[in-house]
Amino acid sequence: MAQNIYDREDFFAGYSQLCRSVEGLDGAAEWPALRAMLPEVRGLRVADLGCGFGWFCRWAREHGATEVLGLDLSEKMLARARAAGLDAGITYAKADLDQLSLPQASFDLVYSSLALHYVEDVMRLFRTVHQALGSGGHFVFSTEHPIFMAPTNPGWVIDAEGRKTWPVDRYLVEGPRTTNWLAKGVVKYHRTIGTTLNALIRSGFTIGHVEEFRPTDAQIAARPELAEELERPMFLLVSVRR
Amino acid sequence: MAQNIYDREDFFAGYSQLCRSVEGLDGAAEWPALRAMLPEVRGLRVADLGCGFGWFCRWAREHGATEVLGLDLSEKMLARARAAGLDAGITYAKADLDQLSLPQASFDLVYSSLALHYVEDVMRLFRTVHQALGSGGHFVFSTEHPIFMAPTNPGWVIDAEGRKTWPVDRYLVEGPRTTNWLAKGVVKYHRTIGTTLNALIRSGFTIGHVEEFRPTDAQIAARPELAEELERPMFLLVSVRR
Repeated sequence: MAQNIYDREDFFAGYSQLCRSVEGLDGAAEWPALRAMLPEVRGLRVADLGCGFGWFCRWAREHGATEVLGLDLSEKMLARARAAGLDAGITYAKADLDQLSLPQASFDLVYSSLALHYVEDVMRLFRTVHQALGSGGHFVFSTEHPIFMAPTNPGWVIDAEGRKTWPVDRYLVEGPRTTNWLAKGVVKYHRTIGTTLNALIRSGFTIGHVEEFRPTDAQIAARPELAEELERPMFLLVSVRR
Repeated sequence: MAQNIYDREDFFAGYSQLCRSVEGLDGAAEWPALRAMLPEVRGLRVADLGCGFGWFCRWAREHGATEVLGLDLSEKMLARARAAGLDAGITYAKADLDQLSLPQASFDLVYSSLALHYVEDVMRLFRTVHQALGSGGHFVFSTEHPIFMAPTNPGWVIDAEGRKTWPVDRYLVEGPRTTNWLAKGVVKYHRTIGTTLNALIRSGFTIGHVEEFRPTDAQIAARPELAEELERPMFLLVSVRR
């Protein structure tokens, strides 16, 4: 059973103030890169694992998806998603990604943004997603990058020459990481890129594209604070096909 | 044109003393993991890109490969490989992996151990390997892990709590890295895992297995100094199929 951190008042209050919560998809620096990895969604049946406020569900419908299922563990997130407007083509439902079941061959695209690092057993989830997709179906997701998640102390260190460095340790020690992001005691699961990709391959997927997110020069020019993202990757973006 | 560092006296003298140079494949901690990713070599036509002293070429012949082509840029390495014994099934030849050409569909397995990080244009090399393999052919290689290669100062830093950390910076800034390993001014090319995998996919390969090398518990028990390898990965191992 995954930790339901998003329903904790302190976490939810902090999360609600993030750029990506206020502005939606365009408030997320990695969205253009992730969007470029999506198939044309027109006519597709879509599931969004960890849909949060429903930004992607609405985007998919606006771009012609026939039906969209938005799943999240957080009641608060789902309530906010539902409050954003009714759409007969979107269904929001509560689900724990560590215990998910989905009907067979019922989706053409499964999407997930920054939710898989809360999942302990990705092998189980990937198999569930695989059987839920029709032949040729797409699975596109972002997750925290293991370089970002591995360290005992995940924060910048200024070295003797004044350089910003990211103190990687325990990269090959997989398992839970407890951090204090927005609230104390947030539990995430660290996995290497290899482990994630091999679990996808063993689930029957073909790897299509793997991107360690790098802000574009234009993004850095517009938001100079993004320059530090060149030092270590924060997000891993993956697209695979059944 | 790749730098021919192995033919420099100081580098060659240092390299010749490494465990993997003296003991061969069994002196390389990652060999069992890489070997597990190989197909059965019996009956296969094999090419080894960056064959060094020829340890793998001889291993492949001992395990039934019908013909083996060992390629290296270093005359010193090739001379040592040839001196290790004549075998009508092994051909050693000089080649620069940045300018390599190989006959079409002429191999069943292309292997490369710790050579690709010296290659500037992997896209060109992957296309060359792809066309040189028959349908279903295997390409299995190890390369320095980008976490290992990225930093401006690639060395351990002891943090305030006495913890060993690896100071990652410039991970998303790809390109040459000059280090002083065994000799001054060794030039390697830093690429993210994503860049390597996407180049393979765009060359027509299907990703089969991706491993960020972790010494086994038994290896650490036998050689306790390997424990630090859990903090950050040194090697990336990949197998793909045409």
